[in-house]
Amino acid sequence: MALIDTAATITFTDRSSSSSTARLLIYNSTKFQKFPNTISPFRRSNSIRFGISSRTSSRTIITHCSSSSANAIQVNNETFAKVIDGKRVAKDIREEIAVEISRMKEEIGIVPGLAVILVGDRKDSATYVRNKKKACDSVGINSYEVRLAEDSTEEEVLSHISKFNDDPSVHGILVQLPLPSHMNEQNILNAVCIEKDVDGFHPLNIGRLAMRGREPLFVPCTPKGCIELLHRYDIPIKGKRAVVIGRSNIVGMPAALLLQREDATVSIVHSRTKNPEEITRQADIIISAVGQPDMVRGSWVKPGAVLIDVGINPVEDPESPRGYRLVGDICYEEASKVASAITPVPGGVGPMTIAMLLSNTLLSAKRMHNLR
Amino acid sequence: MALIDTAATITFTDRSSSSSTARLLIYNSTKFQKFPNTISPFRRSNSIRFGISSRTSSRTIITHCSSSSANAIQVNNETFAKVIDGKRVAKDIREEIAVEISRMKEEIGIVPGLAVILVGDRKDSATYVRNKKKACDSVGINSYEVRLAEDSTEEEVLSHISKFNDDPSVHGILVQLPLPSHMNEQNILNAVCIEKDVDGFHPLNIGRLAMRGREPLFVPCTPKGCIELLHRYDIPIKGKRAVVIGRSNIVGMPAALLLQREDATVSIVHSRTKNPEEITRQADIIISAVGQPDMVRGSWVKPGAVLIDVGINPVEDPESPRGYRLVGDICYEEASKVASAITPVPGGVGPMTIAMLLSNTLLSAKRMHNLR
Repeated sequence: MALIDTAATITFTDRSSSSSTARLLIYNSTKFQKFPNTISPFRRSNSIRFGISSRTSSRTIITHCSSSSANAIQVNNETFAKVIDGKRVAKDIREEIAVEISRMKEEIGIVPGLAVILVGDRKDSATYVRNKKKACDSVGINSYEVRLAEDSTEEEVLSHISKFNDDPSVHGILVQLPLPSHMNEQNILNAVCIEKDVDGFHPLNIGRLAMRGREPLFVPCTPKGCIELLHRYDIPIKGKRAVVIGRSNIVGMPAALLLQREDATVSIVHSRTKNPEEITRQADIIISAVGQPDMVRGSWVKPGAVLIDVGINPVEDPESPRGYRLVGDICYEEASKVASAITPVPGGVGPMTIAMLLSNTLLSAKRMHNLR
Repeated sequence: MALIDTAATITFTDRSSSSSTARLLIYNSTKFQKFPNTISPFRRSNSIRFGISSRTSSRTIITHCSSSSANAIQVNNETFAKVIDGKRVAKDIREEIAVEISRMKEEIGIVPGLAVILVGDRKDSATYVRNKKKACDSVGINSYEVRLAEDSTEEEVLSHISKFNDDPSVHGILVQLPLPSHMNEQNILNAVCIEKDVDGFHPLNIGRLAMRGREPLFVPCTPKGCIELLHRYDIPIKGKRAVVIGRSNIVGMPAALLLQREDATVSIVHSRTKNPEEITRQADIIISAVGQPDMVRGSWVKPGAVLIDVGINPVEDPESPRGYRLVGDICYEEASKVASAITPVPGGVGPMTIAMLLSNTLLSAKRMHNLR
C-alpha cells in the first residue's frame, strides 16, 4: 500500500478499527492500473471554497472519467455544483472543539485524553498515529501513545488496553490497525471498554445506531462526518431519497443507518446490485464509499442531487511529483455539472473524519464528567 | 387492544420485547375505523395450499381495498400468485425441531428450556404465554413460567431473570411485555443474558446482524420467519431489489438487515417516504410490516414480485362472529393478481414467528451443549 501523506487522505484510508477487507475495498491498489498514462490528468483546484465553485479557467480539460479520452468538456459558461468544503468545515469544528476544551479546563481542570496503541514498525501506521497526535495537540486533547515491538504478545497489548480502560485521564482508546498477524484483532478490539471506543465500531454501538429509540455511545467518525457536512450546509435529509454506495462496516452501513435516523428513505447499493445507476439516479443525496475511482458518472446523478464522496482513490499520474493523484468514487468533472452540491476529493469528507474523532473524544470526556 | 385468539395473530401481535411504539404501529386500533360497514367483506380461503391458489369461486367479490366499493373484480380466468403457505412451513419446521429435540434427548439426555416471565393480569398477555407454552410442549421444549402480581417490584422481576440466567436447564428467557408502568422495561430486558435472549432484540445482536463478518447469536423471530419462507420456496434473494415497508426494531429494520446479508439491494420505505409506491414498484421482493390494512395496492407491485405480508390488522366486520376480521398490509385481492408469490393473512408470516422462537430456543440449547 502506498504511503499517502496528506492529512485528508490519512483520515480516511487509515481506519483504526476497520477490518482488512474493508480497507482493501476502499483502498484498492489494483485500481492504480485503471487509467492508462495517455489520459490527461486533471487537478482539483486548491481554491475550492464555500459557495459556487470559482473555477473559471478557460482551458478545455479532458476528463479521465469520460468513456473516451477524446471527449472534451468545455468548462466555461457552465453551472457547477456548490462545493461542500470539508476542509473548511473540519477547521471550524476543530476550533469549536478547542474552545469547548479550554472552557472545560477552566471549569473542571480536566482536558480530554486519547490513547493510541501502535504495534510494530509500519511506516504508514506510524504516520497515521503521528497525525492523530498532531490533531489532538491542535485542539488541546492530551494524547497518550504506546509503541510496542512487532513481536509483542497479545497479552502485552491487552494489558495496556486494560490500563487505559482504568485510567480516568483517558477518554478514548484507539488500537492502530493492522495488528501483527499473530494477534487476534477481534479479541484486542473487544477489550476496549465501550465507553472509550471512540471509533464507534463496537457492535453494541452499531446496534444502538440501527434501533429507533436507542442512542449509540459514539457514531463512527467518517459517516458522522458525512452527515455533519449535510447539516452544516443546511441540506435537508428528512423525507429525501438517499442512496449509499458501499456497505462496509466502517462507512457505508453506518452511513445508511444515520440517514435513516434522519428520516431519509435509504437504499444501499453494493457489488451485487444490478444497474446501480438506475437507483442512484433517483437519489436526492448520494453517499459513495466504495473505493472505485470515478465510478459514479454524471449520468448516474439526478439533476440537483447532493453528492458526498467518501472514496479516496490513488490513480497513476506521471505528471504528479508522487506519480499518482487522488480521486473520489464520483467523477467530479461530470457530476459537478449535474449535482447541486458535491464534496471534492481531497478536501471533502477526508478532513472530517479526524475532526469527528476529536469530537467523539471530547464527547466521551464530557459524558464521563457529566458535562453538557 | 382487542384480544385476538388465533395462533397466527398471537405470534405477531405479541412481540415479547417490542417497544410499545412498535406495537402500536403494527396493531393500530384506530385502523378499525377505516372501512365502513357498507363495504362487503371477503374471507381468505382456508384451503390455501402450496402452488397456485385453488380459488375458483365464480361469484363476483367486492374488494374492500378498491378505491371505490363499487369496483367489482371478476375472479374467474385470472392468474393468481403462488400462495406462500406459512402455516404449512411452520408445521414442517416444528416437526423438524421435534425430531432434533428427541435426538438431543437421546444423545445427551437434555431438552431445550424456555422461561417466560409474566407480570400482571392482562388477559392478552396470559393468552400469549399460554400459546407459547403449548407450542413448546408440542415440540418437546420444557417451558418454565413465572407469574408475578401487577404490584411486584422491579427487583423481584430482576431476581427471577437472574435465577433463569444461572439455570443451565433454561436456554431462552422471555419477559412478556408490556410490563406494568412502574417498571423500567429497558433495565429488565437488559438483565436477560445475551446467550439466552432468544428474541434477538438485544442491541449487540442487532449490531452483529448489521455488520459484515459478524454473526448474531439470535435473529429476531419474525424477520427470520420471512427469510425462511423465501428460502423454503426457493425464491432467490441475491442481487434482487428488495423493499421493506416499515422500520420497526422488531421487524422492518432487522428484515432489511437480513435481506442485505443475503445480498439483496434493499430500500426501506417508511412513514416519511414520499410516493412509496414508486419505490415498491421496483421491488422483486416486498416485505411489509407497517400495520396499515391493505395499504399496498396492486398498483404498488411489479408484475412477478414476491410479497411477504407481516401485517395483521383487524378491520371491522359485522358478518364475522367476532365483529372483525384480519387483513394484512397488502391488499391481497389486488396484489395476488400481479405478484408471482404472496403470503396470506392469516396463515402466512404469523405462524412462522412462533416456529422461529422454538428454533432459536433449540439453537441456544445446541450452542450451550456444543452440538452441531
